[in-house]
Amino acid sequence: MTQAKRQSVPTVLRQRAEKVRAAIDARLTAPDEPSRGIYEAMRYMALGGGKKLRPALVLLAAEACGGTQEQAMPAACAVEMIHTYSLIHDDLPAMDDDDLRHGRPSCHKRFGEAMAILAGDALLTQAFAVLASDVADAEVARRLVAELAQAAGAVGMVGGQVADLAAERGHADGERLLEIIHRRKTACLIEASVVMGAISAGAGEHYERSLRQYGIHLGLGFQIADDVLDASASTETLGKTAGKDAAKGKLTYVTLYGVGAAQTRARAEADRAIDALTAFGHEADWLRDLARFVVDRTF
Amino acid sequence: MTQAKRQSVPTVLRQRAEKVRAAIDARLTAPDEPSRGIYEAMRYMALGGGKKLRPALVLLAAEACGGTQEQAMPAACAVEMIHTYSLIHDDLPAMDDDDLRHGRPSCHKRFGEAMAILAGDALLTQAFAVLASDVADAEVARRLVAELAQAAGAVGMVGGQVADLAAERGHADGERLLEIIHRRKTACLIEASVVMGAISAGAGEHYERSLRQYGIHLGLGFQIADDVLDASASTETLGKTAGKDAAKGKLTYVTLYGVGAAQTRARAEADRAIDALTAFGHEADWLRDLARFVVDRTF
Repeated sequence: MTQAKRQSVPTVLRQRAEKVRAAIDARLTAPDEPSRGIYEAMRYMALGGGKKLRPALVLLAAEACGGTQEQAMPAACAVEMIHTYSLIHDDLPAMDDDDLRHGRPSCHKRFGEAMAILAGDALLTQAFAVLASDVADAEVARRLVAELAQAAGAVGMVGGQVADLAAERGHADGERLLEIIHRRKTACLIEASVVMGAISAGAGEHYERSLRQYGIHLGLGFQIADDVLDASASTETLGKTAGKDAAKGKLTYVTLYGVGAAQTRARAEADRAIDALTAFGHEADWLRDLARFVVDRTF
Repeated sequence: MTQAKRQSVPTVLRQRAEKVRAAIDARLTAPDEPSRGIYEAMRYMALGGGKKLRPALVLLAAEACGGTQEQAMPAACAVEMIHTYSLIHDDLPAMDDDDLRHGRPSCHKRFGEAMAILAGDALLTQAFAVLASDVADAEVARRLVAELAQAAGAVGMVGGQVADLAAERGHADGERLLEIIHRRKTACLIEASVVMGAISAGAGEHYERSLRQYGIHLGLGFQIADDVLDASASTETLGKTAGKDAAKGKLTYVTLYGVGAAQTRARAEADRAIDALTAFGHEADWLRDLARFVVDRTF
């Protein structure tokens, strides 16, 4: 049965992604004519592609805690809006300067740089609007806002970007900096995704702690796998420019230790993620299968 | 007495600004070494100058509703963080391309473009973290997040920036577009400031509605006065590049109707702001005096 399940992780992800896509679509409808332009740019990036892994994790974590997809949908949409804004800003000429995202022109190539900056700002803002407006319980809404803001901010995702820039300029202690980059740039938001699923479902502290550890290790495994893919897959497969890390002299697990060691480490992180799920029974099997899938994916 | 009060509006503003400054200072302390760099950029802009008008409005509105400055301080900090992020992003080369802010190099001139984008993103995120973490009542926190996100987002402040860009490219119906620019770019956040003061103080719907109308008209008056100053004051007085609107072919009340008509209109908006305060007695006198002061200010 586990074998059968493992084979259908992509199907499970696709089902969740489709629901999330519809929910985001409904929440990104321009309410008036003057806002049509900015919503077009926001929709282009939020609905135009991507695996929707983070919002799927929100839903799957909520489901593992006995919650419903409906309960967790505002948190799922908010997390994806944050992720999308970060892609838009990361692609900007002053940042990673990437022309390609999800196999299409990146936001600033399509709408211009000013609009891309503003579309990112608007998505970041909207994420919190969704949590404040669409979550029934005020205390749950407040905890979701706190969790997401912490994970996305100066000691989370944005902090990871800063460390990434510092690494490009060269840094004495590469190993320590790499840890910070991985942890903050990617793992923080993946950790927040599963924790927000637990909060949305009203799960207890025990389950939340377990999912937090799962998220941290899954996030690290995911980022290392991403670095491996950047070094080994084609631009066509990735839908974004491949080989960018080496070209830009980025500090990654691959540039520091090589592809083989990176793959081994990614799988070890998946194991640790699965080990963290001891609070759960079979209801967390998808999360377990997903951990293996994420580090072995080829796209 | 009103005369005496009116003369000391700058003093009242300065007192509130100092308290807000200290509160923001405490909330923008880097919690660890890797985040020192981004916090430095955030602090440079959030603490480096500016009148702190919006957070002062939050406090004064809360006080008019019988609330305390302490109750309203998280909302005051959050509003100022949003305002600061918008200045950082507006000054970027792809946006207004301004080298000067608060009489010093703008954020990207001082820290580079990538860091300026990220510092703006981090401040925007931190605003919501403050509301979620520092407000005692969960329902109050949720309402503050909703109000601020609405005012700052795609149909608020960011939407106003988009309209501003559209105006630079030329537009058929200048008068209507100008209304949208003024309303969204500036008035939305000023409106939110006084409403968030009322929410923080636990004021009733009646007072909130009254303050919302006050904020809308004060915001319009403020923006028109700002346009007048851009056309008539010096760069040294403003601490930012003067004469920029005309140079960039911006659509403003001054470029459309001239300085005289703009001044008349700004004062009319102050009158309407004051008229909206019928729900309040003398406890709102500072807000009344402030409305006149804002449209007649020379800095």
